[in-house]
Amino acid sequence: MIPVIDGLQYAKWSEKIFRQMRTGRVDAVHVTITYHETFRETVQVIEQWNRWFERFPNLIFHGRTAADVQIARDTERTAIFFGSQNPSCIEDDIGLVEVLHTLGLRFMQLTYNNQSLLASGCYETVDSGLTRMGRAVVAEMNRVGLVVDMSHSGERSTFDAIEHSTRPIAITHANLHSWYPVLRNKSDALLRALGESGGFLGLSIYPHHLRNGSACTLQDWCDMVARAMDLVGPEQVGIGTDLCQDQPDSIVEWMRTGRWTKAIDYGEGHADAAGFPAMPHWFNDNCDFENLRAGLKAAGLEQTVIDGVMGGNWLRFFAISFGTAQTDQTKECRVVALST
Amino acid sequence: MIPVIDGLQYAKWSEKIFRQMRTGRVDAVHVTITYHETFRETVQVIEQWNRWFERFPNLIFHGRTAADVQIARDTERTAIFFGSQNPSCIEDDIGLVEVLHTLGLRFMQLTYNNQSLLASGCYETVDSGLTRMGRAVVAEMNRVGLVVDMSHSGERSTFDAIEHSTRPIAITHANLHSWYPVLRNKSDALLRALGESGGFLGLSIYPHHLRNGSACTLQDWCDMVARAMDLVGPEQVGIGTDLCQDQPDSIVEWMRTGRWTKAIDYGEGHADAAGFPAMPHWFNDNCDFENLRAGLKAAGLEQTVIDGVMGGNWLRFFAISFGTAQTDQTKECRVVALST
Repeated sequence: MIPVIDGLQYAKWSEKIFRQMRTGRVDAVHVTITYHETFRETVQVIEQWNRWFERFPNLIFHGRTAADVQIARDTERTAIFFGSQNPSCIEDDIGLVEVLHTLGLRFMQLTYNNQSLLASGCYETVDSGLTRMGRAVVAEMNRVGLVVDMSHSGERSTFDAIEHSTRPIAITHANLHSWYPVLRNKSDALLRALGESGGFLGLSIYPHHLRNGSACTLQDWCDMVARAMDLVGPEQVGIGTDLCQDQPDSIVEWMRTGRWTKAIDYGEGHADAAGFPAMPHWFNDNCDFENLRAGLKAAGLEQTVIDGVMGGNWLRFFAISFGTAQTDQTKECRVVALST
Repeated sequence: MIPVIDGLQYAKWSEKIFRQMRTGRVDAVHVTITYHETFRETVQVIEQWNRWFERFPNLIFHGRTAADVQIARDTERTAIFFGSQNPSCIEDDIGLVEVLHTLGLRFMQLTYNNQSLLASGCYETVDSGLTRMGRAVVAEMNRVGLVVDMSHSGERSTFDAIEHSTRPIAITHANLHSWYPVLRNKSDALLRALGESGGFLGLSIYPHHLRNGSACTLQDWCDMVARAMDLVGPEQVGIGTDLCQDQPDSIVEWMRTGRWTKAIDYGEGHADAAGFPAMPHWFNDNCDFENLRAGLKAAGLEQTVIDGVMGGNWLRFFAISFGTAQTDQTKECRVVALST
């Protein structure tokens, strides 16, 4: 059976949510463990995850390879894959790329809205592309098997990453700018280049990325999924819900302002709606993945295509992405060939 | 063929030394990566090791399990296993035990000469045994598969560790107090208790632990090895040379004083001989392991016993020690059963 995989969540984790993942039969989730945290602070979050893994071994475990998704399915648990939405966790130290990969990090955004040491964020006025350190770090990420994620990056930086990276990159959670024109959504030209390079797009259900926001219909979203497959490639599109379940509004403030400003920055929101937006009624939490499957079916997609979007496509991407540059093509692919 | 394993070295690592490991056919070495370093500083040392692994892949690689020793032998390389001589690297944070184990740490001393947060060092006037945090950390080390090393600890603390630890502990580098009575060498009573608990003793060639220091004869040392086997158990003794090759004397000062005093502390040395002592002529570097084998043969030990001391015994200890409490008894032992 093809697995169900969510390409991005950042919830206020709890036993309730881990149980909902089982209810929704989610086999793997890429979870954000850090935004603006330093390396040491990121390690503290990993320590917290280790306690959850120790405390809830029948619900979740730490996912490291594509093969772990199959283990999750076989043992009826959810494999948790770590990611960072900003490179703060590597500070100015390229050696931390391998260290964090060893600790389980599998995705890292080069930027989160702002300029970073590596690239430009999508909210900067000037997008100067990959920096000197950015090129060095992308090469190191390629070497160890840490996926370059450009979800919150500027367009030129993302084109640069596609060109410079020797392995496919991902945009784990964003939608089509031509469907809903906000800074976080991606242009058709960029998505075509992403697809041609073997890259991957996870489609978001975060209301600020949706046409009509929280009122977006399931049908409208599913029609966009079909269009995304035309642009990127039918096997290079999956889900990246960006679910931020149960988080207090203080967290979205931390996500937006970290320690970089003393002023308020509303990011994707605005002064009249500064907190987390309400999710669409058809996707409230991890129990609702079957709603997405039903919507894709109603949109007329074939069963194999739906299976791919629900997780099969992400699984193939995991298989070529998480090992060292040498091992991926042999070991991991074999594992996946056996398990799908 | 039975492997050659050294249970402790802290050299000024270089390509020269890695090549000497190959000349001496050393299949695995437990290397000290940290003394007084904080967690972040320890990670920087790991980053340095990662660069050596990347630069010299035909000479060394990062060892994590007993099975890696066999891989080292098969591929004519040396497996490097990480250890800490002090618990500074976990700071006051028990969560760092698992984090450092994930990064490859396989041995950690609870103390280095002084009182630590966990236990008392062998140079303290009062040895108060395992602390509250010490008991908690030993349990966590047992859980994840990080070996409790009491080489530099006080006697009562070591008895406490033997009693409290649910898995065998190690004294990776020390000798018999009854052979040469210095604070770093261990009493017969302690070594008998170590043996009865399934623990392990690595015998040192560091001159401050040797009768007649640098002038100690190979025969005298080998006779002590035989005596140690009587005390601890014939399959629970190995080598822990404590080789500090090519280190400048500033390093022994760091080892002894770290940041804990502004005064000079001579540790095992004294004011007239503050630097590193000269090694005995029969063990200068990693090329000289065959001298030890010849000495043990001349001392009348049987071939199988010699093979055990040279590495077979350490290999069995590695096999039961480095995995999580649940997996060790199954997976690792099977691997070793296949490979020896």
